[in-house]
Amino acid sequence: MAVGAGVLPELYPVAGVRLGTVSAGIKTPGRKDLVLLELAQGGHCAAVFTRNAFCAAPVTVAREHLRLCQAQPRYLLVNTGNANAGTGEAGLVAAKDCAAAVAALAAVRPEEVLPFSTGVIGEPLPVAAINAVIPSALAALSPEGWADAAAGIMTTDTRPKGCSLRFRVQDREYTITGIAKGAGMIRPNMATMLAYVATDMAVAPALLQQLLGAAVETTFNRITVDGDTSTNDACVLVATAAAGNPVVVDGDSPLCLALRNALEEVCLALAQGLVRDGEGASKFVTVQVNGGRNEQECLDVAFTIAHSPLVKTALFASDPNWGRLLAAIGRAGLADLQVERVSVYLNDVLIAAGGCRAQSYTEEQGVAAMAPEEIVIRVDLERGDYAAAVWTTDFSYDYVRINAEYRS
Amino acid sequence: MAVGAGVLPELYPVAGVRLGTVSAGIKTPGRKDLVLLELAQGGHCAAVFTRNAFCAAPVTVAREHLRLCQAQPRYLLVNTGNANAGTGEAGLVAAKDCAAAVAALAAVRPEEVLPFSTGVIGEPLPVAAINAVIPSALAALSPEGWADAAAGIMTTDTRPKGCSLRFRVQDREYTITGIAKGAGMIRPNMATMLAYVATDMAVAPALLQQLLGAAVETTFNRITVDGDTSTNDACVLVATAAAGNPVVVDGDSPLCLALRNALEEVCLALAQGLVRDGEGASKFVTVQVNGGRNEQECLDVAFTIAHSPLVKTALFASDPNWGRLLAAIGRAGLADLQVERVSVYLNDVLIAAGGCRAQSYTEEQGVAAMAPEEIVIRVDLERGDYAAAVWTTDFSYDYVRINAEYRS
Repeated sequence: MAVGAGVLPELYPVAGVRLGTVSAGIKTPGRKDLVLLELAQGGHCAAVFTRNAFCAAPVTVAREHLRLCQAQPRYLLVNTGNANAGTGEAGLVAAKDCAAAVAALAAVRPEEVLPFSTGVIGEPLPVAAINAVIPSALAALSPEGWADAAAGIMTTDTRPKGCSLRFRVQDREYTITGIAKGAGMIRPNMATMLAYVATDMAVAPALLQQLLGAAVETTFNRITVDGDTSTNDACVLVATAAAGNPVVVDGDSPLCLALRNALEEVCLALAQGLVRDGEGASKFVTVQVNGGRNEQECLDVAFTIAHSPLVKTALFASDPNWGRLLAAIGRAGLADLQVERVSVYLNDVLIAAGGCRAQSYTEEQGVAAMAPEEIVIRVDLERGDYAAAVWTTDFSYDYVRINAEYRS
Repeated sequence: MAVGAGVLPELYPVAGVRLGTVSAGIKTPGRKDLVLLELAQGGHCAAVFTRNAFCAAPVTVAREHLRLCQAQPRYLLVNTGNANAGTGEAGLVAAKDCAAAVAALAAVRPEEVLPFSTGVIGEPLPVAAINAVIPSALAALSPEGWADAAAGIMTTDTRPKGCSLRFRVQDREYTITGIAKGAGMIRPNMATMLAYVATDMAVAPALLQQLLGAAVETTFNRITVDGDTSTNDACVLVATAAAGNPVVVDGDSPLCLALRNALEEVCLALAQGLVRDGEGASKFVTVQVNGGRNEQECLDVAFTIAHSPLVKTALFASDPNWGRLLAAIGRAGLADLQVERVSVYLNDVLIAAGGCRAQSYTEEQGVAAMAPEEIVIRVDLERGDYAAAVWTTDFSYDYVRINAEYRS
């Protein structure tokens, strides 16, 4: 199951980026499971990685290579089917072996290749199988390769996710294109998620990293499927500098503001795409919390609701169970919460106010509000001026089935 | 589903306590859903209540009455089928009405009656139906009424829970008997849980409250089914003073130590009984974390594992998925966690060490370890001398079914 049509939009090529997607037969014979991204010389990368203490070998190696190549990698190598996580010292060697194989064939230094893996935890990475198809991945490189790559990085995803924009600033046109994968083990501080976003704008490395961090904070870090954080998360932002603009160094310049907006739009579309394709998802739920004393307490309430299995099973049942919503708000840990000031809406229907069911509320209104695939739960705390939103899914039989059957 | 045989043990009468269980037809016609506990004069009560900011009306009233009667209530009135939560001002009036009805018929003051409710949130309490059967509840009062009461307070529970001990100190015999209900919405800081424990020992009120707080901390506050905290939790400890001992005032006296041990044993049995009867539970899981720098970080790791839907669905599938365990440990937020020092055991099988699968580990060992209904997940952090355990269940299709169908 997944929410919405989920048709992959047109993904525009980004000058300076070529992609090749091939099959290494890692888990499923014949399935395309290996993606190689080639970045032209002269560009830069920014990246954010999982905060899980048990981070996977490729995360360690990618982070180290990114530093060694001064944020100017030439290749990103991504495999699905095997996370190379929980694999200890051998896993580090395996990730480096694959990077070295790309480097040798492409005549670059090994630290100019960043490895990424997603899939089963704890199995040895099939290095020989991967390295055997790197020549064909190099041969397959094409600027048009984004859609194939979006499919090639999937694990339990039911559909590829991508987003692409063109925007014009001061008579020059720029492109930004991104792809992402992830369907479960998704929660704040990154998900079981890999995301690759590229623009042809030239941007100073420090500013690029700052832009990525800010965009991730309000998009990928605001989604949750099941509260679990993966060992392999990574989000990479490439600025190829192929558009020919003077390098952007000023965060307040029109060019930077345009990029910031486009980047946030792409990241939000990708992040929400992950939620819509959440494991077993039958609803796409926005939890909007207004009127907090600060942003953090809005997020605390929003995530407490979004993580509550009782709320999530009620969403699955399309049951307007406002009691479970109040109970979740009440345990979010807010100091001196005046429950009589709190109101809760399902879409535009006021369901609870003054600590109990709203007087105007009827069960028919609630049932109607819960019927659509897309639902907004809005909480007004009425104790301040801050607001925050997170996005999540319901909890279905299929979630249990998928995670009981799939060995991640 | 539920784990283990779950036969209700013999529940010994406690001198000074009588119980009557009748049907008020609150939700299901004919079902016994109303329990009245009568406490003889001369005893005391201690109580702990939910920390949820949206606490139910009876919690507010019980707390207030307990204070007004100086911890010497004469009646505890418990209904199931309706939680009287999220009911606002009308809910408070309803809870007081029921207490007043008992008081009038039993010729005590209204504040000597504590009301408790569990069941559906947000529906008006059927005061008339409850008050109509209070005469028959009074008529049914019996020292032998514990087993009926254990059944009478159930909601989605599949079986009654109780525990009873007799212990001898300095040639005098004492009794402690407890009952509890709860099957979901169970997590630290109390559960959707009502528990009533009584002893015939005479204990000073302040010491009684302290003993109860300590016992709850290491038993009821260490269990979790789904991470949700209810609006109605309450745990009451009665000391009837009927055994005739001099009032215990010294926390280090032999009498107090004996009571402390017996109380902890009863509370642990009741708490574990709630987990064994957890909604949809097919496993009873002990998560034991050793080698922490302090107790809190052991609890953080234990609860992160116990709340992880990915770990819980793997337990349901009897899948020895050590990768998900490592991922949960890694996101528990411990500062400077050295993952290479962490080891993880399933029962006595070392499954992960040094940040990866243990060399000695075989899949057959893991499958064998996961097969029983009762499983111990043990984590050794090797960074200190503290330890803590929590108890939980797996996450099954039945959990989703029960919570999608049941309006709590």
